[in-house]
Amino acid sequence: MARLKRVVLERLMQYYRFLNRKTASRPLKTITSAQIAEALDVDPTQVRKDFGAIGLVGIGRVGYQVEEVCCTIRRVLGLDLEKRAVIIGAGRLGGALLAYGGFDKYGLRILGIFDNDPRKIGRKLEGYTIEPVRTLKPFIRKYDIELAILATPVEVAQTLADRVVSAGVKAIWNFAPTRLTVPETVLVRNEHISLGLAKITYFLRQEHDSRE
Amino acid sequence: MARLKRVVLERLMQYYRFLNRKTASRPLKTITSAQIAEALDVDPTQVRKDFGAIGLVGIGRVGYQVEEVCCTIRRVLGLDLEKRAVIIGAGRLGGALLAYGGFDKYGLRILGIFDNDPRKIGRKLEGYTIEPVRTLKPFIRKYDIELAILATPVEVAQTLADRVVSAGVKAIWNFAPTRLTVPETVLVRNEHISLGLAKITYFLRQEHDSRE
Repeated sequence: MARLKRVVLERLMQYYRFLNRKTASRPLKTITSAQIAEALDVDPTQVRKDFGAIGLVGIGRVGYQVEEVCCTIRRVLGLDLEKRAVIIGAGRLGGALLAYGGFDKYGLRILGIFDNDPRKIGRKLEGYTIEPVRTLKPFIRKYDIELAILATPVEVAQTLADRVVSAGVKAIWNFAPTRLTVPETVLVRNEHISLGLAKITYFLRQEHDSRE
Repeated sequence: MARLKRVVLERLMQYYRFLNRKTASRPLKTITSAQIAEALDVDPTQVRKDFGAIGLVGIGRVGYQVEEVCCTIRRVLGLDLEKRAVIIGAGRLGGALLAYGGFDKYGLRILGIFDNDPRKIGRKLEGYTIEPVRTLKPFIRKYDIELAILATPVEVAQTLADRVVSAGVKAIWNFAPTRLTVPETVLVRNEHISLGLAKITYFLRQEHDSRE
């Protein structure tokens, strides 16, 4: 299978979330690309293309076997595999991520939360004890941590990225609004809140224009 | 100008953020599509196409006038316009959003934060006094609020969406992991943290595979 692009991966995740929600309320054997497309506001052709890319084939008007679709997406996206992670930064955002609780569904297991503020270290947060960042490296090695979730201020983000990379993490989920420099073998996913704003500000500008 | 798609809007926001960062450290008159493309890991053709879509034309090897690019993106995305917003939900996520402080750059002005928890109401958070959700409607009308930022638990998200819509907001930035039903004239932007995970879990699965 060819390497899938980010946009395709994100749509697969969307389909998966949708089917999970759908089957949570009542059992569902089959679904058509048109039904998925309508619910998620994408083109039915796009759905069929994305499914085709991961080897799923629908049958005429019957559509796709829901269970097969879910299983295939789980396998392709690696949702079944356990992925060990730490959160760095025990501020509001770090706390919000820790409290989110929905990460299990994706195989993400948070093993610890770290901060460099002496007033925070040792305190409890969502059942975790906040640990000092100076113990980050041995912790990552000991527990074979693959993913570091960065929820720190911009100023310390690169230093901490360097540290977790040298300790052996394979991916960084970066919530600090800055670009990180890492070796090519390490994946960085930047979570830029401002990108989401683009659609909103554009829409509101058009609303303003139409009023004039 | 044709209506721009979400992916284009998000790339424009990325270019804008990049140029702002770039010029913050030292003045810069011109930049080529190749330079932008390399820094942001997109195709140079894509950059030229996106710029062309908003009327920007580069000159040979000189490239684009940075100031013109920034001004045009600001205008197209409506970043100069003031957009009045409220945050609903004074939990960790609401607090993190309030503390973010980077919203000014995009013309976003947060006027208040609301919660329904009597223990929170009246308390201070990042300089704001937490207000009760029952005063949300008159507040939205009085201050002509256009955008509601939803940072509540899933269970109350739809009820609160209904309320802010009936009070007149034009857009909802939804951080609750649920799909909202709103009239067609209202824009909803869902901020799904799990979409960002797709790329990470896919990458880590391939790492696992290659080890076997």
